[in-house]
Amino acid sequence: MNFDKNSQIVIVGVGLIGGSYAMGLTRQGYRVSAIDTNPASIEFGLQQGLFAEGATKPEPALLAKADLLIMGLYPTAMLDWLRANQQHLRPGTLITDVSGVKSNIVDVAQDFLRPDLEFCASHPMAGTERSGIQNADCRIFANANFIITPTERNTPAGIAAVRRLAEILQFKTIRELDIHTHDHMIGFLSQLTHAIAVSLMTCNDDEELAAFTGDSFRDLTRIARINDVMWSELFLLNRDILIENIDCFSDELHRLRQLLQAQDREGLRHMFRKSTARRAQFDANK
Amino acid sequence: MNFDKNSQIVIVGVGLIGGSYAMGLTRQGYRVSAIDTNPASIEFGLQQGLFAEGATKPEPALLAKADLLIMGLYPTAMLDWLRANQQHLRPGTLITDVSGVKSNIVDVAQDFLRPDLEFCASHPMAGTERSGIQNADCRIFANANFIITPTERNTPAGIAAVRRLAEILQFKTIRELDIHTHDHMIGFLSQLTHAIAVSLMTCNDDEELAAFTGDSFRDLTRIARINDVMWSELFLLNRDILIENIDCFSDELHRLRQLLQAQDREGLRHMFRKSTARRAQFDANK
Repeated sequence: MNFDKNSQIVIVGVGLIGGSYAMGLTRQGYRVSAIDTNPASIEFGLQQGLFAEGATKPEPALLAKADLLIMGLYPTAMLDWLRANQQHLRPGTLITDVSGVKSNIVDVAQDFLRPDLEFCASHPMAGTERSGIQNADCRIFANANFIITPTERNTPAGIAAVRRLAEILQFKTIRELDIHTHDHMIGFLSQLTHAIAVSLMTCNDDEELAAFTGDSFRDLTRIARINDVMWSELFLLNRDILIENIDCFSDELHRLRQLLQAQDREGLRHMFRKSTARRAQFDANK
Repeated sequence: MNFDKNSQIVIVGVGLIGGSYAMGLTRQGYRVSAIDTNPASIEFGLQQGLFAEGATKPEPALLAKADLLIMGLYPTAMLDWLRANQQHLRPGTLITDVSGVKSNIVDVAQDFLRPDLEFCASHPMAGTERSGIQNADCRIFANANFIITPTERNTPAGIAAVRRLAEILQFKTIRELDIHTHDHMIGFLSQLTHAIAVSLMTCNDDEELAAFTGDSFRDLTRIARINDVMWSELFLLNRDILIENIDCFSDELHRLRQLLQAQDREGLRHMFRKSTARRAQFDANK
């Protein structure tokens, strides 16, 4: 596709991420319109100058102008929306998304979309604990990874345009991964860590403990404040891979428990040295 | 005991914590001597003015002057040291420690110590990832909890003197807990979190992942850089309680896994909302 400052970009769903995309693109001089069922979000975005035009419904005239359509909805809502509204898009429109999981999403969309539309999925690995366009801030991308997950149904031009989008938004790094690798990586680095944080936060209801919490507990549970709608959806979409990761972690924790039970001091020390070395390597790669 | 600026304080083991105690006490005008088998630690402390007098051996003449003896050694080394050197202390010397675990330590020490010595245990809940007197900094106490764990063998005067020590070092809060409550609290807030961080760091050896780590994984593994000697000792001393906590956490993570397996979206959302509410409460209590 042709993607320049004359292109019309339409963002569907302007929450934290969609709104931050709008802010970044508008500030760089691109033409952005927004669609969101929440009138307050559209009003806020127009007032703040995050986009030039907005609608609370999928207006056919607006959609027919889109060169690039960015889907800022939760994954399953995105599929429903595309099924219902793809008829309004003109041939050649490029579609991308912001979903944190790609299995059970990308293939499904590519199967039902018209052959004259291209869906090239991507994942901005950015966010904050807050949601909503009121907290939109395009600076959250500056230190973040952007992953493109092309399939064999994508064109070099489509992939290049999504890469260009990430460049305009000033992501720190832009990488391509196949869907399976992406979802395994997310299952471990993001979903397993959230599953652990939630379980740690809910496994003990002693309110007295709050008086004694130090940095360790606070670090491990910061991400235990979690959007229940979004995360239950992401967990379920990536269910098999997340279960695999939970089992792998649980086995390792059980191994530590066995070393303790056996009073195996050398075994514990070996595990701690390995952990220390790995974490040091992560810090070095930062 | 009489504890004022004429009192002689002797610190045995000037690592990060012992060294930071020395710095804080000396800056407040107290008379501090140090004993450490490492000549470099004594030399550093004298050069930096962290203490006025130092020795690399348990010199009887130095020990005989001690009004307050602060044991900065690891727990089992502390027990060995006290067994070997209590003979040099004069009657009435008050002894405290810095150990992170109290079971299997305090009772043991109180059993073998001379009846004219008082051991009143305490735990400064402070630290950094770095060790050694070179990293000593008494400011680490300003935001930290200090726990006194008295037993029925302690005197009101002994407990008051240890409390005074924490006040001089400017801890944020000073609390008294019985040993069992302390070790349960530590088993959950500190030891379980370290066990989780280590297991998360060691359960997956895919080096490619480092390129994609975000805040979540970094938060959960910051404490995976761990002093293997000290932590294996602390884990083993608190073995039964830590195993109990690992089991409690593992059951909760397994419950999450079952919700996933059953595709129980409402069950997951309920757990996430509970986690969010609890963490919000922790933040409110900060």
